[in-house]
Amino acid sequence: MANIDRRTFLRTTTAIAAGAVVPDLTLATDNNNKELMASPSPATSHVTKTLASYIVSARYEDLPENVRKEGLRTLLNWVGVAVGGSHHETIDIAVDALRPFSGLSQASILGRRERFDVMNAAFINGVSSHIFDYDDTHLKTIIHPAGPVMSAILALSEYRRVDGRAFLNALILGVETECRIGNAVYPDHYDRGWHITGTAGVFGAAASAGKLLDLSEQQMIWALGLAASQPVGLRESFGSMNKSFNPGRAASNGLFAAILASKNFTSSNEMIEAKRGWASTISTKQDYKEIADGLGQRYEALLNTYKPFACGIVMHPAIDAAIQLRNQYQLKPEQIDTVNLRVNPLVLELTGKKAPTAGLEGKFSIYHAVAVAMVEGAAGEKQFSDRAVQDPVIIALRTRVTPVVDPAVKPEQVEMSITLKDGRQLEKSIQHAIGSLEAPMTDHDLESKFTDLSEGILTSEQTRELIALSWSVEKLSNAGDLAKAAVPA
Amino acid sequence: MANIDRRTFLRTTTAIAAGAVVPDLTLATDNNNKELMASPSPATSHVTKTLASYIVSARYEDLPENVRKEGLRTLLNWVGVAVGGSHHETIDIAVDALRPFSGLSQASILGRRERFDVMNAAFINGVSSHIFDYDDTHLKTIIHPAGPVMSAILALSEYRRVDGRAFLNALILGVETECRIGNAVYPDHYDRGWHITGTAGVFGAAASAGKLLDLSEQQMIWALGLAASQPVGLRESFGSMNKSFNPGRAASNGLFAAILASKNFTSSNEMIEAKRGWASTISTKQDYKEIADGLGQRYEALLNTYKPFACGIVMHPAIDAAIQLRNQYQLKPEQIDTVNLRVNPLVLELTGKKAPTAGLEGKFSIYHAVAVAMVEGAAGEKQFSDRAVQDPVIIALRTRVTPVVDPAVKPEQVEMSITLKDGRQLEKSIQHAIGSLEAPMTDHDLESKFTDLSEGILTSEQTRELIALSWSVEKLSNAGDLAKAAVPA
Repeated sequence: MANIDRRTFLRTTTAIAAGAVVPDLTLATDNNNKELMASPSPATSHVTKTLASYIVSARYEDLPENVRKEGLRTLLNWVGVAVGGSHHETIDIAVDALRPFSGLSQASILGRRERFDVMNAAFINGVSSHIFDYDDTHLKTIIHPAGPVMSAILALSEYRRVDGRAFLNALILGVETECRIGNAVYPDHYDRGWHITGTAGVFGAAASAGKLLDLSEQQMIWALGLAASQPVGLRESFGSMNKSFNPGRAASNGLFAAILASKNFTSSNEMIEAKRGWASTISTKQDYKEIADGLGQRYEALLNTYKPFACGIVMHPAIDAAIQLRNQYQLKPEQIDTVNLRVNPLVLELTGKKAPTAGLEGKFSIYHAVAVAMVEGAAGEKQFSDRAVQDPVIIALRTRVTPVVDPAVKPEQVEMSITLKDGRQLEKSIQHAIGSLEAPMTDHDLESKFTDLSEGILTSEQTRELIALSWSVEKLSNAGDLAKAAVPA
Repeated sequence: MANIDRRTFLRTTTAIAAGAVVPDLTLATDNNNKELMASPSPATSHVTKTLASYIVSARYEDLPENVRKEGLRTLLNWVGVAVGGSHHETIDIAVDALRPFSGLSQASILGRRERFDVMNAAFINGVSSHIFDYDDTHLKTIIHPAGPVMSAILALSEYRRVDGRAFLNALILGVETECRIGNAVYPDHYDRGWHITGTAGVFGAAASAGKLLDLSEQQMIWALGLAASQPVGLRESFGSMNKSFNPGRAASNGLFAAILASKNFTSSNEMIEAKRGWASTISTKQDYKEIADGLGQRYEALLNTYKPFACGIVMHPAIDAAIQLRNQYQLKPEQIDTVNLRVNPLVLELTGKKAPTAGLEGKFSIYHAVAVAMVEGAAGEKQFSDRAVQDPVIIALRTRVTPVVDPAVKPEQVEMSITLKDGRQLEKSIQHAIGSLEAPMTDHDLESKFTDLSEGILTSEQTRELIALSWSVEKLSNAGDLAKAAVPA
């Protein structure tokens, strides 16, 4: 606690010394006015303009091959999770609530037959894609990049025809925008309580939608400004439907910003970097180089990862170890005496629930996660269902799982030691769990995840076609076809 | 500057000592999870629930007479400014941009003939009502209370029939909610860069719309939680269309929250007061007593004020003095030699523009404001037009206006001394300008302001009828009739 206070103090005073936060209690008026202010230093000037200029000028043809490829993996993973979440109670509620206010059938809800206007469709698809907490992760910021961006541009593409290459370019630019802006303020911004996927995500949605709307540089500056005016989401909502709400609302807010800007609805020209702009208002850290440097040279899309398991990343190393040992030794639960783990302290802090009774609680139980992975060889959405956490075989095994905290073990690591009833001792050490940047999911893994999520919603044939269409989006003359292909036949 | 730094440091460390902000850099994960936390102290517990409980149970019949009356004044003033702003370029753009996405003709745009779905109509009317910066002001927080609330509930009332008394009750509860939440975080929250009308306003819109949707206490808690997830607006946008955007988007965001909550879309139960809830994330000051104490006993609606002049409050004392001297002595511009003012330092800091060339710039010129008030006996929207700032008579007079800064003069005061060409010296001292709580606009003043704003948009007869309907809203069996009456015949 003392450590934390000292750190906060240092962070705050450093930020003040840098001119980041200069509150003014005397300014008790709300005129249409900006105060006189010193010129920003070169390092902090033109951040919004530089970014906007890049977004409007960046071409599909300039994308490096590996960036293009990672964009396709991001797209495929997102379509799968959006279809997979589409029949969750949260989506039934959102559809029911919003239908009376959406008269136009402009855009599809993935995995369902209802159609909505573009902005409400973007919202609902964004919610759907985050429900299982199974979407993509930009590990540097913990942003889930695809939700705000794909939801916005896929709905827009059904209204305004765009070819698949322009679509992929917009996706990559949206990811670039939100992750760079996230980099600039992470971790302070997140520590403070913001759900960064919703706060940075709205910029990604605005940038990508604005790209498809052919905004001028000035219009893109305004779109980013209107996006800055609509951050979404607090971490306090985690555990409720409000968490999935955040990427969905980031998508519709970003679209709203881009659509208004396309008709010359104005904003500030320095909304991100101004003295009382977004970054200074919402964070004590502002590293503008993360936004403006190396545009078109380094790509945040290359830092995107995909979850192999439908739960928080903190449990992934242990699940990975359990599945590997199970498969290697063809283990049956009745053979296992005890499972001992050495884990990073975060594991017990976040997932220390010993006896979950509902599926969702299972996502916060390292005991359940290891047991179910050992019994079923997987940790998808089905393994975090009510059925799974109430399975007597899994319950019996989870009581024999013993995690021990060790600060020397990094969050991406685990040491697992299994004692079998026949006395054998099996060991597994994970340095980087499957799904991390160092051990990425293969394309085949992504397809299997997609198929698993789509089961019961789309037919096997339709699922295969949708996967193929996702991989080949660059060949589509109308990217909106992707959304239509995700509607049950 | 040294003072400001010290103040910020004290504020920050005090907040930390109070447990308000405890950042955690180690928590580099984004699970569906809230950390273990100490139980909140009694003072900070159940804030959201207490407020929600009050909102759902408060009845029209319990409103004190003076609160009811002030609610009507708030309503009348809002209808006038919304009609008045409805043909500004900003609204033309918003209508043009959003029309393709709004298929339903559910709700009116005041002062215009287009109809939109409820949420887009709420947005547009909210923008319209703030365009001239001429709406109401809760001086304790500088919130403009009516924009987010009236825009949300009037549009909703056209979709879902509600009688006028329930409507007025919802308006007062919305104002109560947003202003109390604003009180809890002002001024730190505003100092930091947030446009408090948009950040607190979304709660007012959610509360008032939720009241009309008959939310249960639990649903109201969720509506407030979803509202907390959608703050709108940064002060950096002041001077652009984005400023008016903020109350409009607060209205549609609050509606969105209430509509989802009405179908049991869930959020946290402690979204305002939790350790990483709204107040701690968005401000270093959290005074929860301002939210939860004395509900139904004191009313923020009684602290609402209405601008007699279409510019920032800081110039109001000088304008008031100018008009009073002009009328008292029947002054003509050619009689005047010099106008000397002693003013609070804020006046020159905020409105020191000597030679404005466009109407909007005139709002930031104490020289123009005093001159035009002296020449035309008014300072409405017409006095801040291009025509007015380019009028040779007014230009000639403004060069003879000399403000002198004096920290002993409070922001609500002015000392004016006019020297006439015949050598006479006229003096006027203002302690509280017209429009302040101490010298409120009369009902007749409000009607004159309304008529002035409505001119050229509605006929005189329709304007008279709309004013009468606003005063008598409690007698309406369908409050939505008010919106229909504000559409040009």
